[in-house]
Amino acid sequence: MKAHVTIMPKEGILDPQGLTVGKALLNLGIKGVREVRIGKFVEIDMPKLTREKAEAVATEACEKLLANPNIEGYTLTIVDGG
Amino acid sequence: MKAHVTIMPKEGILDPQGLTVGKALLNLGIKGVREVRIGKFVEIDMPKLTREKAEAVATEACEKLLANPNIEGYTLTIVDGG
Repeated sequence: MKAHVTIMPKEGILDPQGLTVGKALLNLGIKGVREVRIGKFVEIDMPKLTREKAEAVATEACEKLLANPNIEGYTLTIVDGG
Repeated sequence: MKAHVTIMPKEGILDPQGLTVGKALLNLGIKGVREVRIGKFVEIDMPKLTREKAEAVATEACEKLLANPNIEGYTLTIVDGG
């Protein structure tokens, strides 16, 4: 199993990287963009684990290491493969 | 429309951030993980664009700014929502 984890700045938290990319798109002449927000995408490969165990391990990884609960939220999906 | 863009290191490209996280998980006693790879997740909000136009704009943003074609690949999905 693989876990696909998306970690994003929470609503209302300043995202300077996203603001910078938004301005850069305008400078490139790319129009129609209201907002850009940038986070992390983490793929965790757990080939020997069942779906339930993989979800538990990935959740523990997010809670103990990957996401900063003060400023970030995460979503997690388990997919076949690996 | 919103674009959800996932940018990951290409197969075979060293991912030191992912290696570091993989080791840190082991140090935390979290077992069953073979590999961790880390990339970026970019959400581009384009409320006034049609699906086709939003896809074109997001693709242009990836090609001209977001992804480094030498070492990164990207996948892009367009989702409803303002």
